[in-house]
Amino acid sequence: MSLTPATSIPAPLRADAPHSPVALGLRYQQVRARSLALAAPLSPDDAMVQSMDDTSPAKWHLAHTTWFFERFVLGCDAGYRAVNPDWDYLFNSYYQSAGPMHARPHRGLLSRPTLAEVLDYRDTIDARMAEGFQAGDFDDTALDTLLLGTHHEQQHQELLLTDIKHAFACNPLKPAYRDDLFEHRSDDTYRDQRGLQWITQNERIVEIGAPAWPGSSDSFAFDSESPRHRVLVHAHALAQRPVSNADYRAFIDDGGYSNPALWMSEGWAKVNSEPWSRPLYWDEDLQRVFTLGGLREIDPHAPVCHLSYFEADAFARWAGARLPTEAEWEAAAATQAITGHFVEDDALHPQPSRSGHTGLQRAGRQQVGLQQLFGDIWEWTSTAYTPYPGFRTLPGALGEYNGKFMCGQWILRGGSCVTPRDHIRASYRNFFYPRDRWQFSGLRLAKDLP
Amino acid sequence: MSLTPATSIPAPLRADAPHSPVALGLRYQQVRARSLALAAPLSPDDAMVQSMDDTSPAKWHLAHTTWFFERFVLGCDAGYRAVNPDWDYLFNSYYQSAGPMHARPHRGLLSRPTLAEVLDYRDTIDARMAEGFQAGDFDDTALDTLLLGTHHEQQHQELLLTDIKHAFACNPLKPAYRDDLFEHRSDDTYRDQRGLQWITQNERIVEIGAPAWPGSSDSFAFDSESPRHRVLVHAHALAQRPVSNADYRAFIDDGGYSNPALWMSEGWAKVNSEPWSRPLYWDEDLQRVFTLGGLREIDPHAPVCHLSYFEADAFARWAGARLPTEAEWEAAAATQAITGHFVEDDALHPQPSRSGHTGLQRAGRQQVGLQQLFGDIWEWTSTAYTPYPGFRTLPGALGEYNGKFMCGQWILRGGSCVTPRDHIRASYRNFFYPRDRWQFSGLRLAKDLP
Amino acid sequence: MSLTPATSIPAPLRADAPHSPVALGLRYQQVRARSLALAAPLSPDDAMVQSMDDTSPAKWHLAHTTWFFERFVLGCDAGYRAVNPDWDYLFNSYYQSAGPMHARPHRGLLSRPTLAEVLDYRDTIDARMAEGFQAGDFDDTALDTLLLGTHHEQQHQELLLTDIKHAFACNPLKPAYRDDLFEHRSDDTYRDQRGLQWITQNERIVEIGAPAWPGSSDSFAFDSESPRHRVLVHAHALAQRPVSNADYRAFIDDGGYSNPALWMSEGWAKVNSEPWSRPLYWDEDLQRVFTLGGLREIDPHAPVCHLSYFEADAFARWAGARLPTEAEWEAAAATQAITGHFVEDDALHPQPSRSGHTGLQRAGRQQVGLQQLFGDIWEWTSTAYTPYPGFRTLPGALGEYNGKFMCGQWILRGGSCVTPRDHIRASYRNFFYPRDRWQFSGLRLAKDLP
Amino acid sequence: MSLTPATSIPAPLRADAPHSPVALGLRYQQVRARSLALAAPLSPDDAMVQSMDDTSPAKWHLAHTTWFFERFVLGCDAGYRAVNPDWDYLFNSYYQSAGPMHARPHRGLLSRPTLAEVLDYRDTIDARMAEGFQAGDFDDTALDTLLLGTHHEQQHQELLLTDIKHAFACNPLKPAYRDDLFEHRSDDTYRDQRGLQWITQNERIVEIGAPAWPGSSDSFAFDSESPRHRVLVHAHALAQRPVSNADYRAFIDDGGYSNPALWMSEGWAKVNSEPWSRPLYWDEDLQRVFTLGGLREIDPHAPVCHLSYFEADAFARWAGARLPTEAEWEAAAATQAITGHFVEDDALHPQPSRSGHTGLQRAGRQQVGLQQLFGDIWEWTSTAYTPYPGFRTLPGALGEYNGKFMCGQWILRGGSCVTPRDHIRASYRNFFYPRDRWQFSGLRLAKDLP
Repeated sequence: MSLTPATSIPAPLRADAPHSPVALGLRYQQVRARSLALAAPLSPDDAMVQSMDDTSPAKWHLAHTTWFFERFVLGCDAGYRAVNPDWDYLFNSYYQSAGPMHARPHRGLLSRPTLAEVLDYRDTIDARMAEGFQAGDFDDTALDTLLLGTHHEQQHQELLLTDIKHAFACNPLKPAYRDDLFEHRSDDTYRDQRGLQWITQNERIVEIGAPAWPGSSDSFAFDSESPRHRVLVHAHALAQRPVSNADYRAFIDDGGYSNPALWMSEGWAKVNSEPWSRPLYWDEDLQRVFTLGGLREIDPHAPVCHLSYFEADAFARWAGARLPTEAEWEAAAATQAITGHFVEDDALHPQPSRSGHTGLQRAGRQQVGLQQLFGDIWEWTSTAYTPYPGFRTLPGALGEYNGKFMCGQWILRGGSCVTPRDHIRASYRNFFYPRDRWQFSGLRLAKDLP
Repeated sequence: MSLTPATSIPAPLRADAPHSPVALGLRYQQVRARSLALAAPLSPDDAMVQSMDDTSPAKWHLAHTTWFFERFVLGCDAGYRAVNPDWDYLFNSYYQSAGPMHARPHRGLLSRPTLAEVLDYRDTIDARMAEGFQAGDFDDTALDTLLLGTHHEQQHQELLLTDIKHAFACNPLKPAYRDDLFEHRSDDTYRDQRGLQWITQNERIVEIGAPAWPGSSDSFAFDSESPRHRVLVHAHALAQRPVSNADYRAFIDDGGYSNPALWMSEGWAKVNSEPWSRPLYWDEDLQRVFTLGGLREIDPHAPVCHLSYFEADAFARWAGARLPTEAEWEAAAATQAITGHFVEDDALHPQPSRSGHTGLQRAGRQQVGLQQLFGDIWEWTSTAYTPYPGFRTLPGALGEYNGKFMCGQWILRGGSCVTPRDHIRASYRNFFYPRDRWQFSGLRLAKDLP
Repeated sequence: MSLTPATSIPAPLRADAPHSPVALGLRYQQVRARSLALAAPLSPDDAMVQSMDDTSPAKWHLAHTTWFFERFVLGCDAGYRAVNPDWDYLFNSYYQSAGPMHARPHRGLLSRPTLAEVLDYRDTIDARMAEGFQAGDFDDTALDTLLLGTHHEQQHQELLLTDIKHAFACNPLKPAYRDDLFEHRSDDTYRDQRGLQWITQNERIVEIGAPAWPGSSDSFAFDSESPRHRVLVHAHALAQRPVSNADYRAFIDDGGYSNPALWMSEGWAKVNSEPWSRPLYWDEDLQRVFTLGGLREIDPHAPVCHLSYFEADAFARWAGARLPTEAEWEAAAATQAITGHFVEDDALHPQPSRSGHTGLQRAGRQQVGLQQLFGDIWEWTSTAYTPYPGFRTLPGALGEYNGKFMCGQWILRGGSCVTPRDHIRASYRNFFYPRDRWQFSGLRLAKDLP
Repeated sequence: MSLTPATSIPAPLRADAPHSPVALGLRYQQVRARSLALAAPLSPDDAMVQSMDDTSPAKWHLAHTTWFFERFVLGCDAGYRAVNPDWDYLFNSYYQSAGPMHARPHRGLLSRPTLAEVLDYRDTIDARMAEGFQAGDFDDTALDTLLLGTHHEQQHQELLLTDIKHAFACNPLKPAYRDDLFEHRSDDTYRDQRGLQWITQNERIVEIGAPAWPGSSDSFAFDSESPRHRVLVHAHALAQRPVSNADYRAFIDDGGYSNPALWMSEGWAKVNSEPWSRPLYWDEDLQRVFTLGGLREIDPHAPVCHLSYFEADAFARWAGARLPTEAEWEAAAATQAITGHFVEDDALHPQPSRSGHTGLQRAGRQQVGLQQLFGDIWEWTSTAYTPYPGFRTLPGALGEYNGKFMCGQWILRGGSCVTPRDHIRASYRNFFYPRDRWQFSGLRLAKDLP
């Protein structure tokens, strides 16, 4: 998977990790139901589209997440009979140890099974899972994998949305995924509150990462978030809020996309070969942006998103700043409540900040605390995605879950407006290639202190 | 279009060209109905698949052929209001003079309009066309374009089938387009009749091509079939029948695919880079072949098909023969009745020859006449697709119909098992690139006579 | 080889085919000496450059032509010991039956053997050949191959020049191959003489092609020029002279490169993807052109050259004309003396016509005859390169000489300013891909007569 | 540049940073002379070859390093007249702020200027530099740039060797760069000494990096090595010696290249697409290896080299270990004397360890200290190449020297058998893409301690 969740760090603050089969069963039902809800606005035609090699059709997401439970939970029973053994080949994503697989760029060619058959498949597996719960068939290992499977499916829920957004944006008709999304617009009173302030931090040793799950902890976290370990963090400051559309527009207007001095060498090559002159989904008029609700006016106070790492990094250099390291980010986030705009807010687009949504703000210290760390946009960090000291993969096929992608990608933190709220935590490490722009990815500035 | 029909050459033999609006209206209805019938077995998912740049989704074929009538017939009326003006961009295939168009390789990304919307679009246009017929709105030019439009749609009917066959073949599940296709199997009595006989012809000047339509002739023919002109044909012989699967198997068994001396240089490069070791759709066991009815045993007596020009040419060299020229082929075909296995036979796969289906055979001279010239498989010729002497394109946007493709492609003749029977004629020039294999393309041998 | 010579058609007019070993030996020496002379201006650095996959380094041309004699003449003696057996692999161009070969696009990587070693190799083989001549070692077959080898080397002489021109044009310094080339400039008196006149021809059956060599004829011709055969030529007219730079400039000024209606579909794709807006080697100021003598002013009266087939064809369509067929061209050329500007004129660039250089003009009928059929520029025809009726390849490895390239390429006729004079004849069929522009390729107009 | 040097860390141990113009002048001469010596075995033909986009012709290295002094040292004088102003375009590597440049993949097309002209260019610039030294023309900034220029040229000396090695390896003749290289073979007494031992280290805070030059330090270091900063290093162990050819052979024999569980996902894709089954330059017999001295038997006790990061990482995983971080490596190296096999040893291939060449061993504690940290092979680390905290680029065009490559590449440490001895130091950060194999790159194992 290209996305990764973990348990909240100050363990006492969260007791939401499902410990019992009953709680797990409930979580399973909720997660599975949400996938269907997200797919509901899509026609069978929509569910077929694969608009680039990096994306998958919605139908495939629905099938693959189901196959995950069938293969890794139900399939642990030696006597299990697969719904369709040929589907192993089709719906395996990248688990070499689970057998050969259909090539990713060809997922969009799979008209069969049809969407209707995939929905039937989901029903069938959900029924078998329900039987398993009722019969008490699942041992601890199965329950752990089942919990992992729900987090896995939440990752695909986010991808389903980012992938269909890309697909619709490729259609000259620019269709909307939904016409009834929540939309919060900033008004003029907003402007005064949005000056950039910095939160400083002295050099210190921090502890980041999550205790290994399962094993050291009951709280779920992906393997890549472990082990919890010590890091020396240098003196630095973090911007109070993410970079806004207005900020980014100033970068464009100042010739940001035509000044090679601001760019990584590979980024500059991309700027010229693609070419890039604005965030993905911005219209060339720089006034409108394509969203899951169709074309809209750009809100200057909302966080800018759909930036590549190269763009985030170039913006930071232009601003005389830099991106935060993941340790700086996590150490700051660990003290914050996990509030913000998530998929449940039903906007599916980054919103301007609303008052009172950070821990410090709740305490009345307005303008002091970090805003919008969680939700709205994934924040690019300056940290390459590599294993933590002492990292161990999960046993078996699931060992391929994260470890083998720890090369060439960069860490993003905090979740986005299409992330489920109970899927994110301070230690969560998301990762994408520096060229990738189709995720809800933006940035927050950081700078060194002497 | 990559496919082109024309009127039968000995004009007195055919009076089927619809001259009157009433006859044209009937033909319109029949052609349009068949497209729907051909699409009926497809789910919305199936109708989305584009499995390579050369193919189009079934949905696009259904929409484009409809757009052709809307744009070029209804749209001639200055006051016409398009169903959706944005669709011009989506459903224009390659008419530069009709405005910009969506890039062909991205047709598979168009989930919107949905299949349901496209079917509605067809209904709407059919209704408007019916009104036009009833109101007598169509002048002679419009009626000519309308007739062209029906032949155009028939070309796309064939492509719809070849394209969905390719799409299904790419699916590891190997689904069948239909399970109820007619299948004729040859039995042992067949074998004796299948020795290769040759029909000889002395040097002579022949007339080939169709009179220019519209203008010189009431019988429809595509522009590329005109003008009718004189050609010196050298002394030669044509094989009585197409090359069979058994013949081709002998070529494979003799190392045909590993002997560079048999191949054009470009073909040899393809053999090694793809790589090719058998006809497209043959299973690697050389026993089974993928058809629109699913995987089947190969019938040794049926014509081999899904060969590239390179393979047809290499086979002919191996056999000590060559491919016919298009003039040799047409001069021979002009004397034959247009009988054979077409789409109406509902086999959608080449069949072994049945007695009595050629003109000479009907006259009782068994084994003497040319068999299966029409239907079953398109026959590669040795002739590059270039304009006939004096060739003129149609006026306006439809001048782009054929002329601009007269470079780098090769002529095929005779129609196939997925061609409508009333779409083919002796002068019909089909054309594809020498590398193309997804059409129902095979060959008949020819040889020089001293 | 991509280039092919043949004997002159009216056999009595030429007695220059070397029949005796002595005459052959003389020809061998002359041809070999010219290759060295052509390479003399090149440094070892220059002799290394391969500026695209279609070209070869000068060093490779010098080595390959030598290897041809070693492998196919000297090597026929079973006891022959190769100078370096490893060089078979390096210097084999495309003879699959002579063993595996180094990939063409990598010829520019062969720093070893060095140019000095290749020149030594030439000396060694020349000495061995001289011994062979003196000892009378060569039987008739060897002598035939030897004659073929000299024509083969002449083809590579032309390629050496076109390839180094391309290489130098890729160098931002735009170096000249030589600074002392002959340059004839047209003056103002020229202009009046250059109106376009047409030479008409009624429909008739002509005989084209060369008798098969060796065998039917003592006069050398490549296999692809045979057999001599009858063709029906339709009534048509040929332009008296090639299209000039001034003519072509008018096409550019009229928007020729931005009007899709003038172009083959593939050509239009090239115009946009490369992009093309003028002949290869024209400067963007449309005033200067890169030549083997460096950058020069464009002479409006000289034939335009370095056009692709697509450009030649588009120009002809713009001019309301078409390209000649190869039969039309050859039938006209067979009556002309082989005069014109060849490599011996030491201009290495197309020149404007000088009076008295065609047969008819010599007879005093000024302005009536066809001008510049031979030399200056290869003339694209409308004929695809396919085998003549009854075509047979040479026996053995040399059967690969021409036949396997008879797919996808187009015929050019007449030789150019870098062709050796005694290498060309009316039946000579040169061939290149329609996209190719680095040869000295231009055009002459033709048109249909009613 | 893809290579980067810095001053030795325990400053008192080295006094070799040239402070005075005289010392600098001497260093200049020595460095420049070595480049010529390294190019001496190459013919003009050899100096032209560019065998892949990542490499450059030797001639280009010779010219570019000269241009660096002309452009950035001599050119600082406003009145300076360039030897050839057109060469700015040719010999600028990647300095966007110094103007446009010739595309890197086309460097192999530059036959002009010839090698002879480039050598003249070197002479001319050396003479002008000598005049500058004598006249005292260089101010402190110029002297700093000059010192940087010598280190820059040393980087290109290494590249000249790695690039020509790649070029020769592409030649089927497998020529040797030199036939007289020093070759040390291990004998049987070696084996006993080569068991793998581990040097352990507890968690601690270390200081790594070099003080900023120029400014904070007189000792030269590249900008990317600064600033010196504190890092928390976890408890770990480093292998006493690099991985040997024998070790790597065991990995191959154990199916290392066919077990996806050992590989990063991108690495596994490379293994299959290239495909890779052994180190670059190993013969398929696994007995011989191509070296700058030609094909040789593999010495089992010498460090394995020409591995990609993917291979180094997979080997480490197979061995139950991991790669060191760059901080672990540097902290260990900072205590070692800089001894080892460098370009001066004239082997140009990794050698087995010889006794007494590490600091600890010199002290008599055999088998205890780290061996071969410096020289022989660059050691891949697990650290992605990103900026140190507080990193600042150099001012002006030289700011592009390193900073813009800090994305997607990985750190290698320690120098190799083709690195000049006075070019390396403990803080030196070299960097290449994880797919790169043509550098002398190997690995040393590390492992976590509890």
